[in-house]
Amino acid sequence: MFFGQCEINMVTIQLPDGSKQSHDSGATALAVAEGISPRLASAAIAADVDGKLTDITTPLSDGEHTVRIITSRDPEALEVLRHTAAHVMAQAVLRLYGNDTQYSIGPALMDDFQYGFYYDFDLPEGKSISADDLPKIEEEMAKIIDAKIPLQRVEMSPDDAKAEMKKIGQSYKIEMIDDMLKETPDAKLSFYRQGDFIDMCRGPHLPDTGKLGNAFKLMSVAGAYWRGDENNKMLTRIYGVAFFDKKDLAAHVERIEEAKKRDHRVLGRQLGLFLLDEKVGPGLPLWLPNGSIIRMELEGWLRGELLKRGYQPVHTPHIGKLDLWRTSGHYPYYEHGLFPTMNLAEGEGEDGYLLKPMNCPFHIQIYKSSQKSYRDLPVRLSEFGQVYRFEQSGELSGLTRVRGFTQDDAHIFCTPEQLEAEIESCVDLTKLCLATLGLDDYRVRIGLRDPDSAKYTGKSENWDLAENNIRRVVKKLDMNYTEEPGEAAFYGPKIDFVVKDCIGREWQLGTIQVDYNLPERFDLEYTAADNASHRPVMIHRAPLGSPERFIGILIEHFAGAFPLWLAPVQAAVLPVSDKFLNYAQGVVRALRNAGLRVDLDDSPDKIGAKIRRATVQKIPYMAVVGGREVESNTVAVRHRTAGDAGAMSVESFVEGLLAEKISRGSEPLHVAS
Amino acid sequence: MFFGQCEINMVTIQLPDGSKQSHDSGATALAVAEGISPRLASAAIAADVDGKLTDITTPLSDGEHTVRIITSRDPEALEVLRHTAAHVMAQAVLRLYGNDTQYSIGPALMDDFQYGFYYDFDLPEGKSISADDLPKIEEEMAKIIDAKIPLQRVEMSPDDAKAEMKKIGQSYKIEMIDDMLKETPDAKLSFYRQGDFIDMCRGPHLPDTGKLGNAFKLMSVAGAYWRGDENNKMLTRIYGVAFFDKKDLAAHVERIEEAKKRDHRVLGRQLGLFLLDEKVGPGLPLWLPNGSIIRMELEGWLRGELLKRGYQPVHTPHIGKLDLWRTSGHYPYYEHGLFPTMNLAEGEGEDGYLLKPMNCPFHIQIYKSSQKSYRDLPVRLSEFGQVYRFEQSGELSGLTRVRGFTQDDAHIFCTPEQLEAEIESCVDLTKLCLATLGLDDYRVRIGLRDPDSAKYTGKSENWDLAENNIRRVVKKLDMNYTEEPGEAAFYGPKIDFVVKDCIGREWQLGTIQVDYNLPERFDLEYTAADNASHRPVMIHRAPLGSPERFIGILIEHFAGAFPLWLAPVQAAVLPVSDKFLNYAQGVVRALRNAGLRVDLDDSPDKIGAKIRRATVQKIPYMAVVGGREVESNTVAVRHRTAGDAGAMSVESFVEGLLAEKISRGSEPLHVAS
Repeated sequence: MFFGQCEINMVTIQLPDGSKQSHDSGATALAVAEGISPRLASAAIAADVDGKLTDITTPLSDGEHTVRIITSRDPEALEVLRHTAAHVMAQAVLRLYGNDTQYSIGPALMDDFQYGFYYDFDLPEGKSISADDLPKIEEEMAKIIDAKIPLQRVEMSPDDAKAEMKKIGQSYKIEMIDDMLKETPDAKLSFYRQGDFIDMCRGPHLPDTGKLGNAFKLMSVAGAYWRGDENNKMLTRIYGVAFFDKKDLAAHVERIEEAKKRDHRVLGRQLGLFLLDEKVGPGLPLWLPNGSIIRMELEGWLRGELLKRGYQPVHTPHIGKLDLWRTSGHYPYYEHGLFPTMNLAEGEGEDGYLLKPMNCPFHIQIYKSSQKSYRDLPVRLSEFGQVYRFEQSGELSGLTRVRGFTQDDAHIFCTPEQLEAEIESCVDLTKLCLATLGLDDYRVRIGLRDPDSAKYTGKSENWDLAENNIRRVVKKLDMNYTEEPGEAAFYGPKIDFVVKDCIGREWQLGTIQVDYNLPERFDLEYTAADNASHRPVMIHRAPLGSPERFIGILIEHFAGAFPLWLAPVQAAVLPVSDKFLNYAQGVVRALRNAGLRVDLDDSPDKIGAKIRRATVQKIPYMAVVGGREVESNTVAVRHRTAGDAGAMSVESFVEGLLAEKISRGSEPLHVAS
Repeated sequence: MFFGQCEINMVTIQLPDGSKQSHDSGATALAVAEGISPRLASAAIAADVDGKLTDITTPLSDGEHTVRIITSRDPEALEVLRHTAAHVMAQAVLRLYGNDTQYSIGPALMDDFQYGFYYDFDLPEGKSISADDLPKIEEEMAKIIDAKIPLQRVEMSPDDAKAEMKKIGQSYKIEMIDDMLKETPDAKLSFYRQGDFIDMCRGPHLPDTGKLGNAFKLMSVAGAYWRGDENNKMLTRIYGVAFFDKKDLAAHVERIEEAKKRDHRVLGRQLGLFLLDEKVGPGLPLWLPNGSIIRMELEGWLRGELLKRGYQPVHTPHIGKLDLWRTSGHYPYYEHGLFPTMNLAEGEGEDGYLLKPMNCPFHIQIYKSSQKSYRDLPVRLSEFGQVYRFEQSGELSGLTRVRGFTQDDAHIFCTPEQLEAEIESCVDLTKLCLATLGLDDYRVRIGLRDPDSAKYTGKSENWDLAENNIRRVVKKLDMNYTEEPGEAAFYGPKIDFVVKDCIGREWQLGTIQVDYNLPERFDLEYTAADNASHRPVMIHRAPLGSPERFIGILIEHFAGAFPLWLAPVQAAVLPVSDKFLNYAQGVVRALRNAGLRVDLDDSPDKIGAKIRRATVQKIPYMAVVGGREVESNTVAVRHRTAGDAGAMSVESFVEGLLAEKISRGSEPLHVAS
């Protein structure tokens, strides 16, 4: 076709709205943007060309392309911005600390709550960077930005690339090129150059440093081993964050300040919730009385929900013979993450013991302890079982990364026909848990096996079955979800609930795992209606995930101000002076008789100090009693945040507290009404 | 004095009623009995001479003696009878299996529920004894009894004794003589001879075999290592029991039959309460759903009582660094009874870990985690903490001897002035627990240190203090108690509650331990009113002892028929036929809404079979529903033991059950009313 032939040396563009453009050979996405409007061209950050994120200045090859111009409004834009910010920071550091500064890697961070990018440096002998130096580096970055230096993509052969890096003395880059060549020997390597600075990088980047703007901030300096290996040299890592808008930056900084205030490790100590004690061991929290109450309330509520749903409670030991874990497959698979084996001396005639990393083998033994028929299924065994995993001590943090933790665990043994309804009911329970605690903002992630990995147990067809069971349920429930290969448990695929807390951080909490494999390893059976022996399917699930982790997150979510039903102390009775102590004790008795947790502040302090103390302790309600209250047989009620709620009779105070407790809400009923 | 001189070659006797007798030199206690009445002489079993139990036929030395004649009515008599029974059994075995049968030891057992005596034999090559042989041995014993052979006490020098034993070829006895000589080289050894049988024995014995009578029975045969050491030869042990009266023997045999029926290991399986599984490990019970419910109810009730008494709940890990246990003194002291240490590899930079045998060091660390003033004391930290001890596998039994068990533990930290009131309150709580479970028959034992043993920690003056604190409290409370040196914990003396169950067996349950020593080892402090730092005292206490052991005993005490509040299923609804299923489901709903645990028997079985099944499952109440009940809107109520309770409205059935549940009684309210 003539017309077609004619177009061979041209670029034809299809735009998202369906319209088309034709350009001469060598045209860039910037030209496409200019073809739409000058304003768009000036706002252009990068382009999506045929589904691939590309520099706005890269020439398009001849032929047809779909092109979408990326501006700061597109979700992909922020990563480009932050990536360029890392390069600009590196350029500034080299300017300030000399060109003999070595640089290794400098990625954009999109999932990190605190940081948006970092770069690792190996500084010249005798030089170092501290937090005090960050403003100076920021200033130098501002100069580079003001200079609007274009970022140019350069592709080189490996040999040319190594020669270039040798010329500027960047040994880490040479090591990285060598490694890359081992995998793909004839790769073309891409570099980005901005003035006198050049870095190996996949891109894309902003067209020039001026587009970075002024909504960036360097946050902190830390040590980081080259390649994360403690046998390598410790490099200097500078963390920063960047946005398109100053307002976003300010909100981010504020959120980080807020997170510091909510730090559950600080609040945990301050409010007497839990204790981490080196003498006991790292990552082994001890629950103090106030934390124990929260834990017991949460557990008690969940136990009630489990009973309603036909779960049966069990209790199992914290250790089991080594052979049990060989059968389950936990032993070889999890060995690196286990506490060391308890080996018995020769001649004791017994196998060694392991501290349990999971409850499943025990629940399986309970299932096996009696003959099951299809009429007995589903069997739903639940346990708040404490498990132990030997995480590296450097990875431990408060209640959220520990070595000893409870699982709000259950194992459901059912027929294949019952499976999807059971998964659905697990999803329902998890949603109820999150909704009850006000954690309504979550996404769902399906963890699939990585087909290339050998770490998974069991037959491929079982995996296919299980993955499809899960997909069908989330589709039926019309849930938004992503699929992530390589995120499955070793015995089966799973649904994870990734929850966003009130300041925007994401936490993986509830999990539902489908397992056709352990039933085979343990040879589980039931007699079906056909009188033959069949294999049940198992679900492992924990709607909270772990009470430790969950409560750690709740502490931060509520900033320690727990809803009434969970609050360790629900009300403080504050007599204005000793004269009213008798009356105050009567109020305390009335509240206690109603099953409420109450403190009496009988200290000699002034009422203002008493109110401050109760507020700092985040006690939901204060009942102030003085002459007027005694006379009118009332209490003057204050809420920790909503403040004064006026005078009311002791009876209506109790009634209101009970109503709020039963509602499990986090809003103060007394003040709202 | 002339009269006095004259009496030098005479025996003067003071009797319990204050009267006196005079006898010629060489008179026996039998002569004293004859001096009272021929009937007493014929009933005489042994004598208490100057406070020491003695043969009735041993000549009394010249001079004054107090003498009390022992007959079958005296509590000391049974041990003498059983001791002679052991000798008679040994004589019978030698007659039947040959004089080359070796015999080692044959004690009377007074504290054993099942057995009254045993003897260990090393039978000639090729011979053995099984349970089937016991009647034959009993027959031979009867012949020896009929022959009324006198038992004669013979005292020998060690050399003569060894010569005698060598002559009859009893090598175990020679070994025992040698051992005895090591301790007391110039002891006189006593032997008892009855016809052709002779045995080394302290005595006393019945005067002749005829007095043994016919109220004896050989119960079982078992293997037993010589000296209880598994490196030694396995001997054949024959167990028997003997009484003065056939009726007592019959009652004993019946009680043992009853105990078999109540065996908690059998009932535990039958009622789905718990599971012991070799694959998990010996002595590590898994609580099945029904048992878990009992455990949770018991725990929940106790938690409520603890809250009322000002205890604070805590939760602590199941492992702790080795050094924590070195500080506590558990590590060297308890090492033989611990699970093996979890040793970390070189270079992991951490101490090893131990599975906790006790909760105390964790509660101590919690106490230490914040500054304490006298106003904060007493601090009462409570935990249902699961601990692990490596008992020998041969000693394990059901729930009563295990390796993993919970303690209903608490540690009270108080000032020395508060101590006795706190002990008193612990006694009170323990009594409440026993009374609530209907275990009202108990005695109290004070365990003191053995002053000759080195296994106790701490200063002698602290032990004196603690022992006196305990004595003062039990005296103040007017409790019957015995003191037992050597029964203390390694850190302090204790009060133990030894409970008799409904068939007369004794179990050690609740314990209260006073401890001045761990506060020193852990350097605990509080600031007193004088503003100086002082040392608190600790109480370790567990009113149930251990829920595992306690429930094991409760299962036997109630023969599995738990009171309503503890019953795993509280009511079964039994429709007479499918036609009434709808109505039955309504009844189930009404019961469940009231918080009761209910089963619906919707099987196609006849009503008789349904009633039988619910009765076997020991479900307290059955609600039978048929045409008449549907019409009159009632249920026909049956109690598992009391039987028919007539028809009543669903509401009054529910009300009655709730009232019975709240009362925590074990009597059926519905039938009683």
